[in-house]
Amino acid sequence: MTNKQLNIGIFGFGNVGQGLYEVLQKSPSTKASIKKVVVRQKNKARSISQDLVSFNPDDILQNAEINTVAELIDNADDALKIVTQALKAGKNVVSGNKKMIAENLTNLLELQVETGSSLLYDASACGSIPVIRNLEEYYDNDLLKGITGILNGSSNYILTQMHRHNASYNNALKEAQEKGFAESDPTFDVDGYDAMYKLIILALHGFGTIVKPEDIFFTGISNIQACDIQLAREKGKKIKLIARAFKTENVKIALLVAPAFVGPESYIYNVDEEFNGVIIEGEAYDEQLMFGKGAGSHPTGSAVLSDITAMSYNYKYEYKKRKFFTPPTQTNDVSIKVYFRYQQANVPDLLPLQSIEEQYSGPNYQYTVGTVKLADLLNTKDILRKFEVFTALHDYKSK
Amino acid sequence: MTNKQLNIGIFGFGNVGQGLYEVLQKSPSTKASIKKVVVRQKNKARSISQDLVSFNPDDILQNAEINTVAELIDNADDALKIVTQALKAGKNVVSGNKKMIAENLTNLLELQVETGSSLLYDASACGSIPVIRNLEEYYDNDLLKGITGILNGSSNYILTQMHRHNASYNNALKEAQEKGFAESDPTFDVDGYDAMYKLIILALHGFGTIVKPEDIFFTGISNIQACDIQLAREKGKKIKLIARAFKTENVKIALLVAPAFVGPESYIYNVDEEFNGVIIEGEAYDEQLMFGKGAGSHPTGSAVLSDITAMSYNYKYEYKKRKFFTPPTQTNDVSIKVYFRYQQANVPDLLPLQSIEEQYSGPNYQYTVGTVKLADLLNTKDILRKFEVFTALHDYKSK
Repeated sequence: MTNKQLNIGIFGFGNVGQGLYEVLQKSPSTKASIKKVVVRQKNKARSISQDLVSFNPDDILQNAEINTVAELIDNADDALKIVTQALKAGKNVVSGNKKMIAENLTNLLELQVETGSSLLYDASACGSIPVIRNLEEYYDNDLLKGITGILNGSSNYILTQMHRHNASYNNALKEAQEKGFAESDPTFDVDGYDAMYKLIILALHGFGTIVKPEDIFFTGISNIQACDIQLAREKGKKIKLIARAFKTENVKIALLVAPAFVGPESYIYNVDEEFNGVIIEGEAYDEQLMFGKGAGSHPTGSAVLSDITAMSYNYKYEYKKRKFFTPPTQTNDVSIKVYFRYQQANVPDLLPLQSIEEQYSGPNYQYTVGTVKLADLLNTKDILRKFEVFTALHDYKSK
Repeated sequence: MTNKQLNIGIFGFGNVGQGLYEVLQKSPSTKASIKKVVVRQKNKARSISQDLVSFNPDDILQNAEINTVAELIDNADDALKIVTQALKAGKNVVSGNKKMIAENLTNLLELQVETGSSLLYDASACGSIPVIRNLEEYYDNDLLKGITGILNGSSNYILTQMHRHNASYNNALKEAQEKGFAESDPTFDVDGYDAMYKLIILALHGFGTIVKPEDIFFTGISNIQACDIQLAREKGKKIKLIARAFKTENVKIALLVAPAFVGPESYIYNVDEEFNGVIIEGEAYDEQLMFGKGAGSHPTGSAVLSDITAMSYNYKYEYKKRKFFTPPTQTNDVSIKVYFRYQQANVPDLLPLQSIEEQYSGPNYQYTVGTVKLADLLNTKDILRKFEVFTALHDYKSK
């Protein structure tokens, strides 16, 4: 095994790009030097030497000296172009862009085979926690039963503030934005997109299955209200935004993203604030928890650094669960127990309930707890949105 | 990357050997089959086909068909012989024997280079939690600041029973033995040997440093009393047996194993019962926790299986922190704050205290909290033992 010198070109110098730059300074043994940083905005003060900065992507893509590209921009379409061109130019690529990766898995896997270049993206899910690498390398597909995670730091921060300080959703969101845990347009985080894209990536490395975003039921926390938090509190639980992929009885896998009532017996009950936590559930070893900072400039920068270091040892994802196992197919043919909370009395008639277990009707809100098929839930998404139904798993392992 | 067929020979069919056998049945996609199981005791009923059983080590070591050896016996000296012979015979070896590995690291590293064979031992520390693999592959030495773990399940089980049910040490130990969490001779677990050997292995893969057992201060819980637990409770803390390796200010590393007062702000406060938990502390990502079952037939069997699967992809430890970094040297020149509890009034005069912060004297026991140098503590081991001084870190990150 050799340890080759890495000459790095960085696309984007926002939160993560700057984090990588700073973390690299703290890691003098890494044989890596930044040769060029390509950014878009011309009139912005940056903490790096002006000589390093360029506005022309070709200064990286056509630069033969650069063997490693860190793609750390926001826009998924532009990111895909950069990654594609870089791989085709024979460069290894590190990316943290979960949307771009999750939406283009088939394409990106083929590109890696075609070009022989390596694409690593551990920073795309759970920031500094090496979940992707562990699923890829360590957890045997036969034994793996489920992956359940709090994958979105913004939502978790908001929910924590609501639980702890009785903050309203809007105030908690505002605080999260002020602290840099949520974007000015929070939709991507609070409506479950971010967690859903991450889950797709984890499902690939854990089970080998490529799942399309449109085939997954996902919902977020943007219409949560104080009454939902209060109900959770009365039950001794917390509401957490959960992403879960699990094997079904007929050896398929089901995926979903939704808020869930989580009790103190669960390992993720204490995953609060902006932290992430992932439970790996398996035959033989029961449950394991990986816990840490899932977001932020330095934690994510350190995840990118770990991928860059791995590049220096010529590491590639082998996608072992696809290569050496028969990946399970995805299914939405699974019944789960769900809490629906709404304002209008006619909502239950519109819900695809298989059975009803609890119903509550009061002056301010109403709720129904019942069993639904995941496929029916997916088909009812528009109705849930239209009637502002807050939808949560009755239990995070709800079946 | 290929996925080669593994033909396995197992030495030992105790708890872990049987676990491996059973876990392998649950993992039909693993291209591995057990060809021979060599055991010592002739008149013992076993749950495997008699054809597989042999009493002659050469049935594995001289068997050209067998390419992978799982060494799962208790005796460290015999284990070393088996591992040495198997590596020399060109076979890859999986072992879970922490004592044998920790005591022979230099030798075992050389043997792997000489023979080109691979020795994996993720099962030797924290059972099913892939701590060794993560330290080896993921955590950059420059950024890594510390490794702190509850590494011994037996002690943790005993301490949990004492905290929760006011059990006496002896009763809690008896219960642990009845439940199979402690051996009939519990010294190895409760006096810190087990955690110390594991810590040596983690320090190698985390920092690259090979440390000798005799250079580490380690002490266990066998002389803990109800008054210690009560004091912890009054402070809102728990006593946990901690193993810790951390970088010092002068960029060396210090190692120690001792009970410690742990408060609820720590990620390992909730690691109870027979569970293990390891905090990885680093520049940039702060702290991460890996948590899971650290012992038991199936969890440990699944760890052995993960190593065996890795063998099928020709995985080897590269000992990257030794190869590509300059490993820090070990030091005991570190001051730590310690709680000493004893019966005899003259004990403080015998302790190498640099300064005293608290002293208590009551009808049943006395204690002193003060600062000591780790090196002095190591030199005072005999005195601490002679006077039955219960020694605990005042805080698990005590400095």
